[in-house]
Amino acid sequence: MDRIRKAEMQTLELKRESGPREPLTVALPDPFPLYRGGSISGGVIAYETWGQLNPARDNAILLFTGLSPSAHAAANDQDPTPGWWQKMIGPGCAIDTRRFFVICVNSLGSCFGSTGPASRNPATGERFGLGFPEIAVEDIATAGHAAVRALGIQQLAAVVGASLGGMVVTAFAARHPHGARRLISISGSPAASPFALALRSVQREAILRDPDWQGGNYATDKPPRNGMRLARKLGTITYRSATEWRQRFGREEIAGNALRASPFAPRFAVESYLEAQAERFTRVFDPNCYLYLSRAMDRFDLAEHGGSYAVALQSSQLEKALVIGVESDMLFPIHEQAAIAEALTAAGIDTRFARLPSLEGHDAFLADIPRFDAEIRAFLNH
Amino acid sequence: MDRIRKAEMQTLELKRESGPREPLTVALPDPFPLYRGGSISGGVIAYETWGQLNPARDNAILLFTGLSPSAHAAANDQDPTPGWWQKMIGPGCAIDTRRFFVICVNSLGSCFGSTGPASRNPATGERFGLGFPEIAVEDIATAGHAAVRALGIQQLAAVVGASLGGMVVTAFAARHPHGARRLISISGSPAASPFALALRSVQREAILRDPDWQGGNYATDKPPRNGMRLARKLGTITYRSATEWRQRFGREEIAGNALRASPFAPRFAVESYLEAQAERFTRVFDPNCYLYLSRAMDRFDLAEHGGSYAVALQSSQLEKALVIGVESDMLFPIHEQAAIAEALTAAGIDTRFARLPSLEGHDAFLADIPRFDAEIRAFLNH
Repeated sequence: MDRIRKAEMQTLELKRESGPREPLTVALPDPFPLYRGGSISGGVIAYETWGQLNPARDNAILLFTGLSPSAHAAANDQDPTPGWWQKMIGPGCAIDTRRFFVICVNSLGSCFGSTGPASRNPATGERFGLGFPEIAVEDIATAGHAAVRALGIQQLAAVVGASLGGMVVTAFAARHPHGARRLISISGSPAASPFALALRSVQREAILRDPDWQGGNYATDKPPRNGMRLARKLGTITYRSATEWRQRFGREEIAGNALRASPFAPRFAVESYLEAQAERFTRVFDPNCYLYLSRAMDRFDLAEHGGSYAVALQSSQLEKALVIGVESDMLFPIHEQAAIAEALTAAGIDTRFARLPSLEGHDAFLADIPRFDAEIRAFLNH
Repeated sequence: MDRIRKAEMQTLELKRESGPREPLTVALPDPFPLYRGGSISGGVIAYETWGQLNPARDNAILLFTGLSPSAHAAANDQDPTPGWWQKMIGPGCAIDTRRFFVICVNSLGSCFGSTGPASRNPATGERFGLGFPEIAVEDIATAGHAAVRALGIQQLAAVVGASLGGMVVTAFAARHPHGARRLISISGSPAASPFALALRSVQREAILRDPDWQGGNYATDKPPRNGMRLARKLGTITYRSATEWRQRFGREEIAGNALRASPFAPRFAVESYLEAQAERFTRVFDPNCYLYLSRAMDRFDLAEHGGSYAVALQSSQLEKALVIGVESDMLFPIHEQAAIAEALTAAGIDTRFARLPSLEGHDAFLADIPRFDAEIRAFLNH
């Protein structure tokens, strides 16, 4: 029985005994040095898996997430509830668990089991908060790489990521040239545009200026909810497209609107949608983790690795790559995915660039499953 | 000496005597009934003028502003500092003050001399705040119409507006079919998209949730500055285009960044730009006025006037119209200007639709002067 199965069995055991589900975790090298200086001691990465690792240990796919999801990409024995990419991972799905052993990691710096600003510092028993060192996109990549090594996998069949994850996989290719044979970067970026920088700056400011943020030392039962609400609502606006919303919401008003108590209460259906998104997010995500990951996205620049995107990837041993972009994406505009594809091609990697006409903007990989399924399925079957 | 000249003389007299500049104002009909119910007593509209009204009183152009400017569109005797459309108004300019008598009004509900939520209620001596009745785009149009009537003008040579003003002029045409012979609607909308509704909803929420807002009863020396900062930064992001910012800011970092005290302080040049915009706006604009005008933009729907945009305009006596839109405008997308142009045409009005390729997005009318100058000059000279 390999280490992963053992870990799974232990976790299932734990669940049966203790009730609340504990995420599977793997220890990071200790200390774990960070890209922009400093290091982490006693770090762990939370992960979930689907399918079986084959005896050659060469059928593993590592999946990096966007900014906010956990490692729960799809239902499994650990957690039978649907995951954030439920339709893409499973037997017969585009990422076919009859062939592949799929591992999804919670990003280093996030708050769903991996070490980050919301973790307790073993030395003090307090949450790290702003005492946590700066996390870079490169650290998320290297922590994922370390996690799969610790699970006994020397080289991945593929590394896959969307949004922040689409940045992470390019950093993975630059920093771990032998780490994977294939790469799928979805709605990622080699370096964010000033438009995206500006939006994230406003999102962070909404949190930083919420009096409940308390300089990062907020009470766990009194986080900066208003700031998080605003940040998430703004994110939600930029994750979709104006065209999709025109079709979906139009100018429909909320029923019972005439009974509104406050003169500036939500009136339009689109405002209800924002409200639901914000409520859900604010309940589960840690504000400091949000700030850390947001900043990491801002500072990422693939060209830091040698002077240009192509040089960053030139020592990569990738055999094939798939880069997917969406024409209606305002946050990670399609020319940024084109730049990734060009750099991979310039580095001598057989690369397909799929330019999708989905209306769902940056979130299309979660919403327009048929188009993404077809691209990913064809690429992995090739 | 006509009433306008008299009013100007009185104001100049006042300035000489009292020092601080008082805006010119004209009284609204008392009471002034409002589109969504209620009325205003003792209302005034602040305005500025350029050029001379001719003896036939038929050379007047009325200019409506966007959400935030005052009536100071260009330098004049009242105020020699440059105005917000300085290059467009003057002798030999596209709006040529050798031919036209130009009047710019501060919108009803704004805070630069016209009656609005920041005005004092004569009955109580207190600011109206949320006690002010709801203002609609139609009210801004009708108040402008009433102001020019009070100045002795029966019919305008042209009514012109950009952004909110571009909405206002369509309401003007619907509500005052004999009010003007020509119309110029710039970067306006016949009804906002859910994308614009969502953005304004988040902007308002930033203000509403700022503890200093105090349910609308903030102290004049302690307004909800943080909320206003966020609202304006978000506005600034949507007023330009990602393409322009890529060329203008790229990923340039702020000099001396290494000395930053706070880990989440602005790092990129684009963040400095947002900061400067927010600081300037927060110093001069009243938060409740912002909320009122923002809601008015959300609720405006030209089709309320008869069931469709074209029906709304069918009784208009306009001779000619010019509708200008900008392809890179994300807030008032170009198909909304196309819809205005189609409705004007369907109503039998000789209409030109100018589709400009400017990179400056919604703000192009302030930034890409050559293209706007050419269109407006040709239209007014025809």
